[in-house]
Amino acid sequence: MLLREFIRFNVIFLSLINEVRVRKVLILGGDGFCGWPTSLHLSDAGYEVIIVDDFSRRKTDVELEVESLTPIRPLGERLRVWRDVSGRNIRHVAITIGKEYRELLELLVSEKPYAIVHFAEQRSAPYSMKSSSHRRLTVNNNLSATNDVLAAIVESKLDIHLVHLGTMGVYGYGTTGMKIPEGYLKVQVEEDGEIRGREILYPSNPGSIYHMTKAQDQLLFAFYNKNDGLRITDLHQGIVWGTQTSQTRRDKYLINRFDYDGDYGTVLNRFLMQAAINYPLTVHGTGGQKRAFIHIQDTCRSIQLAIEHPPEKTDRVKILNQMTEIHRVRDLAKLISDKTGVGIAYVDNPRKESAENDLLAVNDQLLEMGLRPITLNEELLNEVEQVAKKYSSRCDQNKIPCLSRW
Amino acid sequence: MLLREFIRFNVIFLSLINEVRVRKVLILGGDGFCGWPTSLHLSDAGYEVIIVDDFSRRKTDVELEVESLTPIRPLGERLRVWRDVSGRNIRHVAITIGKEYRELLELLVSEKPYAIVHFAEQRSAPYSMKSSSHRRLTVNNNLSATNDVLAAIVESKLDIHLVHLGTMGVYGYGTTGMKIPEGYLKVQVEEDGEIRGREILYPSNPGSIYHMTKAQDQLLFAFYNKNDGLRITDLHQGIVWGTQTSQTRRDKYLINRFDYDGDYGTVLNRFLMQAAINYPLTVHGTGGQKRAFIHIQDTCRSIQLAIEHPPEKTDRVKILNQMTEIHRVRDLAKLISDKTGVGIAYVDNPRKESAENDLLAVNDQLLEMGLRPITLNEELLNEVEQVAKKYSSRCDQNKIPCLSRW
Repeated sequence: MLLREFIRFNVIFLSLINEVRVRKVLILGGDGFCGWPTSLHLSDAGYEVIIVDDFSRRKTDVELEVESLTPIRPLGERLRVWRDVSGRNIRHVAITIGKEYRELLELLVSEKPYAIVHFAEQRSAPYSMKSSSHRRLTVNNNLSATNDVLAAIVESKLDIHLVHLGTMGVYGYGTTGMKIPEGYLKVQVEEDGEIRGREILYPSNPGSIYHMTKAQDQLLFAFYNKNDGLRITDLHQGIVWGTQTSQTRRDKYLINRFDYDGDYGTVLNRFLMQAAINYPLTVHGTGGQKRAFIHIQDTCRSIQLAIEHPPEKTDRVKILNQMTEIHRVRDLAKLISDKTGVGIAYVDNPRKESAENDLLAVNDQLLEMGLRPITLNEELLNEVEQVAKKYSSRCDQNKIPCLSRW
Repeated sequence: MLLREFIRFNVIFLSLINEVRVRKVLILGGDGFCGWPTSLHLSDAGYEVIIVDDFSRRKTDVELEVESLTPIRPLGERLRVWRDVSGRNIRHVAITIGKEYRELLELLVSEKPYAIVHFAEQRSAPYSMKSSSHRRLTVNNNLSATNDVLAAIVESKLDIHLVHLGTMGVYGYGTTGMKIPEGYLKVQVEEDGEIRGREILYPSNPGSIYHMTKAQDQLLFAFYNKNDGLRITDLHQGIVWGTQTSQTRRDKYLINRFDYDGDYGTVLNRFLMQAAINYPLTVHGTGGQKRAFIHIQDTCRSIQLAIEHPPEKTDRVKILNQMTEIHRVRDLAKLISDKTGVGIAYVDNPRKESAENDLLAVNDQLLEMGLRPITLNEELLNEVEQVAKKYSSRCDQNKIPCLSRW
């Protein structure tokens, strides 16, 4: 009996140690719009965070001759300030994911992270469609980045859960009125004269080169999961809005970036900025496009939930729809116009897409894991007042229109 | 009336000129196993052929320390001999597709080809699975090559029909007994409580990194077709066997390559070579895998048919199953064993795949265009006698086993 008690005690003790052990997470692209607040959120939640970033997003600002509306600080300064206000250390490693493979592999082998969050992709649809060289850059960067991360996990022989930021834009049937499921579609197929049920990866129908690379990423994930048994969560994210999180608010030097330019500014952030400077809200076409949205703070929470609910090694790729609200673009414009008094300007749609579409989507899994969404209605005016208006003197109005047409 | 007659005459005259005009075709990868005989076939058929090739296939032989069983000549010599025996000129341009984008674009703009045949991809499944660096090379090379070709066609503003060599290996349901359609699958989906019919790109289920890149290529084609109106034919090719065509036979210096090594040797060519040197036919696992085959001469004919039956600009991507026969691997081994007396050796399957699978596939479109297939039964012994036995002294038996395992 004594031996049995001793063993039982040890099992409990070891499992407690395992719970308490600080989990190490690599954030690829941890200096970017989603990556930075996610890094702080996970650090605040007790994770040991290592940011891997080669500043490619800041370099794109240089190329486009634009700047974040908010005065973001150099990463080294951000990390020093975070250490001062939180007592927590975040390290930074400069590796170009997709090119410096050996460096990435050595990092995995030496750090043995519990999870990797992969933001290291070119993430603007208009940017990906500006020219042939932007199409090429987006395909070459995004595909080689994702494949390198997967190949390095396999070569490291470590059991690392990969959490990837995908997009709602990979889905195909946005116009049918069907509620989009989370990643997989139940279909019936006629085989040998019989109708059989199958569940397939949702057929992708991307609207830009950028979105297409995320659809190609899905094929990489499916293959590495099937062939190498990798544990992968793919988060199909809606359009992210908002700037600050409870972590970035803790010091003015921790402020997150806010893009309002025609290439990197998402529709809602552009509206907020336009409202702040009383510049008519530019609606593409009829504004009849329905889009899915999520607040930046909920992005951070969702990623933590994804890390803490990994799939089993024998599971297929886990796909979650990371969005909390769906709105028609012209309704959003009207909402902001009503709240702020700014006008609305309808302009030609630069994109090849349906003028009007319906969109319904399932997001049950994150809600079940405990996500309690921040709503547009409650946070919208805060954003206009505390971010857009506050920094409006930094706005270059010439950069607002989307000049990329396709 | 005179004017009307005059106009009518001119219309007829111009359309005749258009028919007679020599059509220019670029063959990307025109020095390789399928590319070389295709270049000669099209040249012989009256096309003006330009080979674009950076000799990457020959360089891979150097890396793997193997050689074609047949003594292939340098490309410059091949082209001189072809000019002598045919009176036809084939030019060669050395451009690395996927890297030298400007050179490719300038070539399109200056030559204005009628069609491009795209073979410029790493095409061995075992090679793509040898190591992380081979996975990376295959993804980076194949995706950037295909995207560069598509982006260059868009940027050139020319209406060029792209004919791409895909693979039967992208299909997913090889084990269900369903007859695989040509590229698109009819499914029924429940939408808003109603069952609706949809036709989708056949859900891919690739078995190697190589096959996966061809599935990713499909997403590139679908996007460029939808967004930019490109005319694209994707040929989902079976396993190619045979060596010589009616063009390569015209001089010993025109001989095509014959790969028998564990990485690049296709199953049937390896069997032929093994039969020639009385080396037991190595069958992976139970040999229960059914595979689709096509003779190299039929590959050339199919590509000509594809060029001559382009899709309309408003059509979706045209997908043809480029295969003529389906056999179970152990049945093939038995057929060759019976004809030649060589033994059969069952070895562990190095691949992750079903031990036994059924395979049925539609190939109606090429047959309707006029393809009259060469059958295994009629050509098999010729291959053993005229190629494999003739050059058997050049065989390095150590290179036969497939050492790449996954």
